[in-house]
Amino acid sequence: MNQKIIITGGTGFVGSNLIDYLIDKGYYIHAIVRETSDLSILHKVEKDIEIYIYDGDLDKLISYFNYVRPELVFHLASNFIAEHEYNQVNSLINSNILFGTHLLEAMRLSGVKKLINTGTSWQHYNNENYNPVCLYAATKQAYEALIKFYVKSEDFKVITLKLFDTYGETDTRPKLINLLNKFAEEKTVLRMSPGEQILNLVHVYDVCNAFFIASKMLDKKDFKEEKSYAVKSNETHSLKKLISIFEEVSKKKVNVVFGGREYRKREVMTLWDKGELLPEWSQTISLSNGLKRIIER
Amino acid sequence: MNQKIIITGGTGFVGSNLIDYLIDKGYYIHAIVRETSDLSILHKVEKDIEIYIYDGDLDKLISYFNYVRPELVFHLASNFIAEHEYNQVNSLINSNILFGTHLLEAMRLSGVKKLINTGTSWQHYNNENYNPVCLYAATKQAYEALIKFYVKSEDFKVITLKLFDTYGETDTRPKLINLLNKFAEEKTVLRMSPGEQILNLVHVYDVCNAFFIASKMLDKKDFKEEKSYAVKSNETHSLKKLISIFEEVSKKKVNVVFGGREYRKREVMTLWDKGELLPEWSQTISLSNGLKRIIER
Repeated sequence: MNQKIIITGGTGFVGSNLIDYLIDKGYYIHAIVRETSDLSILHKVEKDIEIYIYDGDLDKLISYFNYVRPELVFHLASNFIAEHEYNQVNSLINSNILFGTHLLEAMRLSGVKKLINTGTSWQHYNNENYNPVCLYAATKQAYEALIKFYVKSEDFKVITLKLFDTYGETDTRPKLINLLNKFAEEKTVLRMSPGEQILNLVHVYDVCNAFFIASKMLDKKDFKEEKSYAVKSNETHSLKKLISIFEEVSKKKVNVVFGGREYRKREVMTLWDKGELLPEWSQTISLSNGLKRIIER
Repeated sequence: MNQKIIITGGTGFVGSNLIDYLIDKGYYIHAIVRETSDLSILHKVEKDIEIYIYDGDLDKLISYFNYVRPELVFHLASNFIAEHEYNQVNSLINSNILFGTHLLEAMRLSGVKKLINTGTSWQHYNNENYNPVCLYAATKQAYEALIKFYVKSEDFKVITLKLFDTYGETDTRPKLINLLNKFAEEKTVLRMSPGEQILNLVHVYDVCNAFFIASKMLDKKDFKEEKSYAVKSNETHSLKKLISIFEEVSKKKVNVVFGGREYRKREVMTLWDKGELLPEWSQTISLSNGLKRIIER
């Protein structure tokens, strides 16, 4: 019988890639999605997964956990907002804290003890131990504080993977790195900040590897309580440099005006480098190879 | 003109005492209460306070903050549950995290920068830097993680007072210390745990003093960002000893069977002693004087 896991955020970029990756490894997937999620991304793997639509009802979620009794939970669902407006606060708290706590309660009451959680390097603005770039990053930290209770009182085993930038040829998010190709072809003039902010890009395949490796670490006898690991490539560049690498690899020109707009209020200029790296994991797709995949898609 | 402040939790034990205390100091009080709060405790001071009923609507709360423009906010509201059931999770998150975040947003959008927040020594089980006794304590820690964003991005000045046990002659909560007198008179047989857990009791008048002193600290020029302080008396006793002190002071006998019930799963056996004490504050009501007030009420 295939190992059963529950995953949240399966209709997102990393989540949908992780579902494909885990199906290839022989897992049977139970995906918890929201009522409003676009399920089209999951259709290609429909026969290998079961979908549960979460509507905020904790009773029903507990019943679902008792029915599935998964080996572990991959929690990737999150509401990302870089600069929030006040009317987005409820959504941030509900998605990133309340829903996550429902998961923890459903795990507790169904005897599921293992969780891979998703954090962000944005919890570490200015390379500090804790300084959230934005309210989204603060909700991630707040959720870790809640997880701690279940670790201490219910012997949960938890790894939080702190992600940097992710990218890949299947990414449909309107992120710069995924749009460079389009911009180059359209010869659009891009008015950008001065471009000195430092980025670390990890290809989504390597991110999936990290989730898989972390899940295996939870099985080890000497794994204690909880750990947090950075999932970071060994190629760190300024945004400016990144664009020049793209131009080199693609042999295309991107029409950028650096300094054509201001930096964001809390632009991440320096990279968090104090996080312990995920052991036994390393980047397998170099930035230039990853960019080639985007260019050739 | 009187200084205007906003207070939450004003219908609770500490909050209602703090309202009286601040009225005596000449403040004009705006109390934010929930729809379900029992307002009877506030009637005696009705003429000196204005009551706002919070119904979860952030738009309305922002308008209220813009109308009041208080000097600072005392945030004491909280949903305390020592050992939660799953169906209390929504209430814990909504009261202790979502409502608190609404306050922070309303402060941000009305230019209010000063906050006195209420934490608990229960964030420090086993005298650890962070180990929540219960989910309630974890929500307190989670809320501090959210506060941090406003401190860092909006220059909020925040002090979190970490309270231990509070008591006083006006306490109507069904807490042991407030019931000893009743038990002694009724000659009830009290089946208790072995009683070795360590307690630190601070009289509510001294707790109010602490809130007032903390609010003054926020005005100092050299106050930076945020601080967290323990509000702790210099009399620490085991529960067993506490009962014998009560018997001494009251000259009454409490009929206790120690060991007649088990300790709670995560009973707080040791006292958190690593927290920085609130400067310029000290206990003015000794335990024996505080107990006398309860006995004579």
